Parts: sequence; structure tokens; C-alpha cells
Amino acid sequence: MYKLYSMQRSGNSYKVRLALAFLGMPYRAIEIDILRGESRTPDFLAKNPSGQVPLLEVAEGRYLAESNAILWYVAIGTSLAPESRIERAEALQWMFFEQHALEPNLGAAYFWLSLVRGGRDLQTHALEDWMERGYAALQVMENHLKAHAFFAAGQLTVADIALYGYTHVAGQCDFDLSTFPSIQAWLRRVELEPGFVPMDWKPQDTARDPAGMTAEV
Amino acid sequence: MYKLYSMQRSGNSYKVRLALAFLGMPYRAIEIDILRGESRTPDFLAKNPSGQVPLLEVAEGRYLAESNAILWYVAIGTSLAPESRIERAEALQWMFFEQHALEPNLGAAYFWLSLVRGGRDLQTHALEDWMERGYAALQVMENHLKAHAFFAAGQLTVADIALYGYTHVAGQCDFDLSTFPSIQAWLRRVELEPGFVPMDWKPQDTARDPAGMTAEV
Repeated sequence: MYKLYSMQRSGNSYKVRLALAFLGMPYRAIEIDILRGESRTPDFLAKNPSGQVPLLEVAEGRYLAESNAILWYVAIGTSLAPESRIERAEALQWMFFEQHALEPNLGAAYFWLSLVRGGRDLQTHALEDWMERGYAALQVMENHLKAHAFFAAGQLTVADIALYGYTHVAGQCDFDLSTFPSIQAWLRRVELEPGFVPMDWKPQDTARDPAGMTAEV
Repeated sequence: MYKLYSMQRSGNSYKVRLALAFLGMPYRAIEIDILRGESRTPDFLAKNPSGQVPLLEVAEGRYLAESNAILWYVAIGTSLAPESRIERAEALQWMFFEQHALEPNLGAAYFWLSLVRGGRDLQTHALEDWMERGYAALQVMENHLKAHAFFAAGQLTVADIALYGYTHVAGQCDFDLSTFPSIQAWLRRVELEPGFVPMDWKPQDTARDPAGMTAEV
């Protein structure tokens, strides 16, 4: 069974939990609260030198980082991974877009406005840039979704899951999706797919890991 | 034969040219000077709504964007793509790291300090952030390279090519690699691989495309 180090309120962590839910794959979740420094303990840094969640233990003592690489890994051979070479590359295209155009802006805005107390005052200047670049990314997505039900291969894939992670919390960090009707319709399509779970859903097998140890229950 | 829309001095474009050179794959290069607005013409935007290079025509009228997705696509079935599932995912892990931790900082610094006249004065404030986050990314790479010759699968893969793109120009945008000996040794290892070409190398079959048309020669 996979062991997933994840933070409940992190969009990047949610992506992986959502993919595993769609796939019906059981896993053991270990909650790492980055706001309490739990991703910066020596024990966690030994697992992931970047000090980030999500992190998947793929084999005893072997860890895979980066939400989208984890998505790719767990989806291989499933319906969430496109079959053809070009469609796989197109899914990856959108996943790289997510990591450099969407996540650094919506993800940053969500983190500072929704998770960090007083974050808005700390990030007044940066917020302006995040909004401008975040809206530009949303417009690229809207334009694509005007003509496509999903991002790649004409079906739900890991590309949709990657983009859903932060797009669905846009309203919680000052972004207004009312002028993006195709994005709104796509969010609903993802949510209607069998197996969907919301961000606050917790798997039964969740352990807290306050000391950065693998405190399994 | 592939048709590649690329800018000679762009690190993201160079990644793809370097991979194609390692693989000995012929291609037609079309130079798009983003500094002259050539990636913002209606014709180019019809090919890639994000208005970015590199862009690969994978079939008549079908275009693949995002440098790392293109790398993945051209490398499938070659020695540049790891064979095992976990090693493929580890290569992707480093490629996603490159796009959110290295490229937004070293890439941005390179663009404004090396390519744009007067860019340093325009970006004084942002430069400080780019340096701090860029050095943090370089430290993660240095730590990995202390114990590994390459980033994934114990051999040259698309992950190395992705990271080489902007790391090798670090010295041109204020970064000092003298305290990163493992990165320096890795840069030399990549350069000694058969087929390596430097960033300013041009394929014979290169066309200028000032009007955003596919002005093939």
C-alpha cells in the first residue's frame, strides 16, 4: 500500500489524494503540517531534501516528490493516463503549464490569503503580480475549454487533476471565475466523475506526524 | 521531419535543440524572436495560444508546447528516457522541479540581465527574490549531485537536459557556481556526452520567420 505524506489543505497534496480516490487505490496518509514546520524536520528532509509535500513512498525508503510526477506515476496503466504518445505528451504539456503558470500564482495567493493568518498584509505587493499572471493562465485554460471537455485525450486525465487542484479554490483567494464559464463547467464535470472527493475529505487511514516520524496508527 | 519553432538564445528552446542533437534527429528550425514580438503574432498564437517557444509541430497542424513536454515526447523509446516506471517518474520529478524552482528564477534572471537591454534596472526588486530562490534550487541540485552522476537512472536523461538549459548560463546572470562543485562537474559531464552542442550552435536547416509565417527555405 502506498504511504503518502500530505497536507490536508495543500492543493498540491490534494491532487494526489484526488487521483488515488478516482483510481480507488488504498493508501496510508500521513499528515504533514507545513505551517508548523513539519516538512522541515531532519527526518522529513532526509526523505525529501526539497522539504515539500506531497511525497509518496513508492518502495521501502524510496520517495517520489513533485505532485505532478506522483500523479504520473500512480496513473500509469490506468484510465487517468492517455494511451497514445502524443496525447500523453499533451497531458504533460498541461501539467508543466500548471506548475509554471497556474500554481505559482493561484497556489501562492491561496497559501497567503487562505492559510496564513495576516498573509494578505505580508504579500500586498506580490499579490498584484499573482492576480495578473493567474488571470492570464486562467484565460489560456478558458480558451482551451471552450472547444474541449477536458485538457487532453478527450477524457478525464491526470492533466485535469493537476489543474483542478488550485483552480477549484480560485474563489478563496480573490479570483473571480464569473467571466470564465468554460472553466466553471469543467470544474463541475470533474466533480461529477465517479470517485471524486472534495479537498477536505480524509481517508480513514490517516495518521498525524507531528514529530516528523512515520507515526503510523 | 520535425519542425521546431525556437529562439536561439532561449534556454527553454535550447533544451529541445540539445535533446535532438544528442539523438541525432534531423529537424527544421524556425527562429522566433520573442524580443521582437514574433511569438505574439496572430499566426503564432493560432499555433500556441500561450505565445511561447519552443513549439514542436508533431503532425500537420498539431503542435506541442512546453519545453519539458517536448523533451519527453522526442525522447520516448530512446536512451534519453529511463526505462523503468520509477526512474521515469524520478526524471519527471526533476523536470517539474526545474519548471517551478529553477527556471522561474535563473531563467528570469537570464532573460532580464542577459537578453533585455536595461533589464537590470527594470527588475532590481525582483532580482533579489530570483537570486535567493535560484540559489536554494541550486543547493538542492548540488546535494543530489554529490551522490549521483546524473539526475535520474544513473545516466544522461531528459532530466539532465531540462536542468542544463538554464544552469549552464548561471554565470551570465549573476549566479556564482564556485561553491557548487558537484554542479560544475555535472555540467562538464553533460558537455562530454556524444552529440552535445552548445547553445549558440545552429542547425543547418534554420529559417527566419519574421512575419510569424512558416517561411521555410
